[in-house]
Parts: sequence; C-alpha cells; structure tokens
Amino acid sequence: METTTSRKVYLDYIAGAPVLSEVVEAMLPYLKNIYGNPQSIHDWGDQSREAMDIARDQVASLINGNADEIIFTGSGTESNNMAIKGLAQGQVGKGKHIVVSAIEHFSVLNTVRRMEKAGYEFSLVPVDKYGMVNPEDVVNHIRKDTILVSIMHSNGEVGTIQPIKEIAKKVKGAGVIFHTDAVASTGNVPVDVKELKVDALSLAGNQFYGPKGSGALWVRKGVRLIPLMDGGIQENGRRPGTEDLPAFVGLGKAAEIAKRDMASRAARLSIIRDRLIKGMLGKIDHVVLTGHPSQRLPHHASFCIEFIEGEAMLMLMNMSGIAVSSGSACTSKALKASHVLIAMGLPHEIAQGSLLLTLGLETKEDDIDYVLEKFPPIVARLRQMSPLYAKFLKEERR
Amino acid sequence: METTTSRKVYLDYIAGAPVLSEVVEAMLPYLKNIYGNPQSIHDWGDQSREAMDIARDQVASLINGNADEIIFTGSGTESNNMAIKGLAQGQVGKGKHIVVSAIEHFSVLNTVRRMEKAGYEFSLVPVDKYGMVNPEDVVNHIRKDTILVSIMHSNGEVGTIQPIKEIAKKVKGAGVIFHTDAVASTGNVPVDVKELKVDALSLAGNQFYGPKGSGALWVRKGVRLIPLMDGGIQENGRRPGTEDLPAFVGLGKAAEIAKRDMASRAARLSIIRDRLIKGMLGKIDHVVLTGHPSQRLPHHASFCIEFIEGEAMLMLMNMSGIAVSSGSACTSKALKASHVLIAMGLPHEIAQGSLLLTLGLETKEDDIDYVLEKFPPIVARLRQMSPLYAKFLKEERR
Repeated sequence: METTTSRKVYLDYIAGAPVLSEVVEAMLPYLKNIYGNPQSIHDWGDQSREAMDIARDQVASLINGNADEIIFTGSGTESNNMAIKGLAQGQVGKGKHIVVSAIEHFSVLNTVRRMEKAGYEFSLVPVDKYGMVNPEDVVNHIRKDTILVSIMHSNGEVGTIQPIKEIAKKVKGAGVIFHTDAVASTGNVPVDVKELKVDALSLAGNQFYGPKGSGALWVRKGVRLIPLMDGGIQENGRRPGTEDLPAFVGLGKAAEIAKRDMASRAARLSIIRDRLIKGMLGKIDHVVLTGHPSQRLPHHASFCIEFIEGEAMLMLMNMSGIAVSSGSACTSKALKASHVLIAMGLPHEIAQGSLLLTLGLETKEDDIDYVLEKFPPIVARLRQMSPLYAKFLKEERR
Repeated sequence: METTTSRKVYLDYIAGAPVLSEVVEAMLPYLKNIYGNPQSIHDWGDQSREAMDIARDQVASLINGNADEIIFTGSGTESNNMAIKGLAQGQVGKGKHIVVSAIEHFSVLNTVRRMEKAGYEFSLVPVDKYGMVNPEDVVNHIRKDTILVSIMHSNGEVGTIQPIKEIAKKVKGAGVIFHTDAVASTGNVPVDVKELKVDALSLAGNQFYGPKGSGALWVRKGVRLIPLMDGGIQENGRRPGTEDLPAFVGLGKAAEIAKRDMASRAARLSIIRDRLIKGMLGKIDHVVLTGHPSQRLPHHASFCIEFIEGEAMLMLMNMSGIAVSSGSACTSKALKASHVLIAMGLPHEIAQGSLLLTLGLETKEDDIDYVLEKFPPIVARLRQMSPLYAKFLKEERR
C-alpha cells in the first residue's frame, strides 16, 4: 500500500502510540547498563530492585492505589486474563457465574467464553444505543452463584465511559467481587481506585505513551487471586518470570507523566476531537457518531459511515497519508461487524462502515482540517461503487 | 549492602545479562519512531508487521524451525506455562497424565502442581548425581493416559545438558507429545528442533543478550495448543495482546547474533569456566562441582561449598565486588535447599552451600583470578563461624 501524498496524519493512537522521549530515556539505562536481576542478592540486584520499587510507586500513584497492590504484567490483555481467570478461581466454592457487559474487550469476552469449557457460566449485560451500561441492569444479572462482575471503564471502539463508581457500589452491595478493565481509560481520564471502590483494575502502558509490553493489574489487598502463570516468586508469586525491568520502568515514568499532564492533554485533545466530530457530521451525509456524545474518552471519535465498508475506507485514507482504524486492532482483519456496535443496536450493514479516529500528543488542528478535506471525496467515491447506496438512492427517489 | 572495593566482577549472567548494544540499537526505532500496530491496515501497521516478520524469521532460524511455528511470548516462564497448560489441554480426552523431570524449572514444576487441582496427574523422572535424566527412565514413566512429557534441555542451576534427542525419540516412539524447556540452552549451545525432533520448545531472549520481557514458544505445525491467554487475533490467536514489537525485534536481533557467535562465545567461555572450576576445586577443601563435569552449559560453573550457607557467601562476595548466585533467581530469597540439588542426591546441609557462577561476554580471565583470590578467605571466615564445620573438625580429629 503506497501512499500518493507526502503529508502524513496519524489518527490511530489507540492501536499504537509513540513512547514519550522522557520514557525512552528512563528505560535506556535498564536496557544498556543496569541488568541485575531484582531477586539477586548483590548490588546489581539491589539497583534493579530499587528501580522497580520506584516504578511500582509511580503506577500506584496514577490510580491512587497502594504500591503493594500492583502486579506488573506484559499487556492489558494479560491483566484482564489474570483478573478474570484469577479472581474467579480465587472464589472457588462460592459459585461459577460471571457477569460482564456485552461490549467488553475480547480479552474479557473470549476469556469468559473459554472458561465455559471449565464449567463456568457468564451473563452479558446489555448496553444502550450509546454503549452505556445501566448499573441497575448489572445488579439484575447477579445470581446467588455469581462470583465476579467485570465491566470496562471505557470502551476503546466507541469511547463511552461507564458509570463505574455507581456500578461498583451496587455490585459490592450485592457482595460480589468487581473488576474493571480500565486499559483504554487509565492515563487518559482520571481513574482512582479509592473513589471507584473497585476490587481490581487493569491498565496498560501503551495507552498513555508508555512502552508496549507493559501493563499492570491492581488488586485490592485481601482479594484472593490465583495466578495466571506458575513459576518463581516474582511479584509475590502472582506473576512469575524474570522481571521486564525496562518495561516496568517505562510504565512507571509514563504513569508519572500522565498524572501530571492528563488534564491539559485531555483539554487540548477534546477541543480538536470536537472539531473533528462536528466536521464529520457536518460535511458528510448519513454518518452517525457512535458511542456517547459527552461521556467519552477525550481523544476518541468514532462513526459509522453508511453504505460503505470499513476496510475500503482505511485503504483509501492510507493512500491520502491518513492512518485511521475501523475498530479494535485485535480484530481489524477479521472483517466481522463489531460486537460492540451490534450490542448498541446498530444494524450489521451500518456497523460495517465503522471508522475510528483516535488523537494523540502530536495531533494538531490542521491534521483534522486535512482529514475533513480528504475524507468526503473518499466517501463519495466509495458510495459511487456501493450497491447499497445505489439501492438507497433509488428508494429515496421514489 | 555497600561494597568495600572498587573492582567489580559480575558472574551472574544467567540471572541478568546486559543487552547487546547492537540489539538495543535495533530496538530503538521501535521504541521511538515506529509505533504502528502490526494488525493495522495502513503504512504504519505495515512497517511494524514487516519488522515482526523479520524477527520471527531470525528466531526460527536460531532453532532451525519454521517462522510460522514461532509464538512470541513475554518470558521463558510464559513459554513454559503456555506449553504445559496449552499442550495438555490440547490433548483433552486422551488422558490427564504428564511426565516431567524432578529438576525442571519452577515454571514447569509449579505449573504441573497447579494443574493437579484441575484433575491432572504428574510423575517426576529422577536424575542421577550429575543431574542427568536417563531416557529409559522417561519412557518407564509413560502410562496409557500420558498426554505430555516435558524435560528441560539444560538446567540453569547445575548446567547439565540432557540427551534430549534420545529422550524425544523414545517419547515420540511411545506416541506422546514432547516439550523441552530450552530457556537456559537456546543461544548458548546448538538447539535444532529438526534434529531434536521435539514437538515444542521454550526459549527466552534474556538468556542470550536479548531483552528481558522477550521469549518464544516454538510449536510444531499440527500440534494442538490451547492458548494461555484469550483475546485478540495476534500470533494467530495463540498469544493475544498488543505485540511488544521492540522486544520481539530485540529477540530477533539477539537470535541472529547468537547464531553467528555461539560457537566462538562458547569456546572462549568454556576455557575461562574450566579455569574457574579447576581453581575452585584446587584452592578450597570440601567443595563439590554440581552438575555434569562435561555435558554442561559452556558459561556455567556450580558448586556446593560444604559447611557454609549460600546467602552468607553471596553477601561477602558482594562486599568484594563480586556478583554470584546461590541458585535460581526465581527462588533466591526463598532460602530453601534447591529441589535440583536434592533430586541429585545431595544432603540438605550440603545443598545449602550452593554457589552458582555464570560467565558472559564481559568476563575475562583475570576476573576469575580475582574471584579465586577473594573467595578462599571468605570460605575460611564463614567456616570459622560455622557450627557444622566445628563439629566436622572435632569428628575428624578423633
């Protein structure tokens, strides 16, 4: 796929984002010179252990948790797998029923599906047309044998932020353990485990300019968790394997910076994002904004472009030097209508035209102007070739 | 623990090793400028996907496997967990019995122990006094319901290299899937999956100057594996989560260099290592070399120093600027006698005095001379304080 323009506009930050130069600088010594094993009993080990302690504090501080409640992982997916499998197994004997929303990430949904084979059951809480979960609905799905509820903090495909505090309050009131997948939220919007009163929370560094391959699971002290992996004594036996110190240090630094800059980043990006949304809805017919109009991630805009198929849009946008997405990167080649959009009640043919634009640190207003210049002709061109659009026009003319 | 010397000798490469500067250089662009998600449909994604393909080829080439049989992971521990749990679950219906050796790494041993709770059974194959597994013994532990055998390629604590080709031949002859944990071996000694004829093999980048947080599981095409984690479509659905491209690229580069330099590295280090072993056995009484005298990793020397406890040695060595280990870093603070040494028939009180010195690229002959100068007085000092040694001397005088 060669581009036909020299201008480059990257609007796929949620799928892949650059690592902050301050973060790379913080990591470099741990790639180059400091390589002791944090478990070792010598100065080299001490040096690494101290760096890991600092990183743990930084990550804990971002979510207002305690450092000893942080388990470093290798990704948001690992955090979610560990949470769902580990918390459920930790409740063994109390039941085998799990409640999740219909729009969870595949690392939650495919996990509970896998667990069905081991005798677990799960219920899906529906969402409204904005992708919003009703706290009352969550409680209504809780049964006597429910051992775990997991509802995401925000959805990466449509940006909707859930009322996690209200959901957690009701779930905890029913005496059930509550986990939230805050991978898309953490570092982008305030996430405070003491305020939310959740029992466990997943986060990932690649969502806030930290390194890929870094994540964490926060688990409230006293909540039982069976590890996903077995092995050595690392992370108090909860996540064995030689510690990936450069990744953990990078995650910590990115967390520190996110805590400092989150509000100003969000303020700036949400203005640009609103300009994008306004332009898209104003310049193109038959476009719907997906997700909640206001309760959404500040760097996130998502749409369905009717009568067009997502992948064709991506390819033509790429030829104009613009990187966007048609949904989760975890499924982008699967060419199936998004389970999130379907759960929100969108018909299959409209869900096929999903378009996701996620903004980031390097996004400028004129990037949006460029997109708003290039995109309408692409839509027009693709609709010219669309049998669905031809059918629509014919019916409209009647 | 402050050191009282300016001289520094690091002999704990197996617990933590520097990343080659060529490897760091190869990783840097993927930390800094190239951040597209390999699953994305745009130029940024293509660029990342191409880098991942190259890395996969490099890793496959090191072990003479096919690129599409490589699953990238985050550690040797993850590779082993995925192999043991995933291959066993892939054989569901055929039985629930697993055979492993008594000296496997904890990521294998604690995994089969965990699986007992899910109804699996396991048998431990014993080893001889050198930590060597007898292929005939392995076959004798295979039952009708045996679905998986896992024997490590080499042991990180005592360095012994197993006759994997012979073991695999017998296990495969019995119609059972065979996995080998080659984490300590790969990149240090030749490991060729086509020659060994194993079904699955674990490796980790931190064992051959690649980055921490990088590993792979090779699984022969056609062998069924249930993923350890559930989620997106990455790694053909076998290892979901946003790909840690810098780590994979670093693993690939380290693999390429290891393939090129392995023989010369091993030749150089084994000479220095032999000088160390000779010096230790010659200068100190009541020392035993643990592991096999010749069939061992070229950079590996391990001993039991009688009448002394390992941790005290580490601390005094550290005060002389020398980093060594008393066993696996995954258990170094557990202060239990090593299961490996116990399985080799060493009494508990001797196993307590375990000392492990692992050499690497920066190790020079005069580092060994320095160790051989500093270590005997440390032994003498600790034995002076040892009640066991006093008892021994008293008995000897009789």
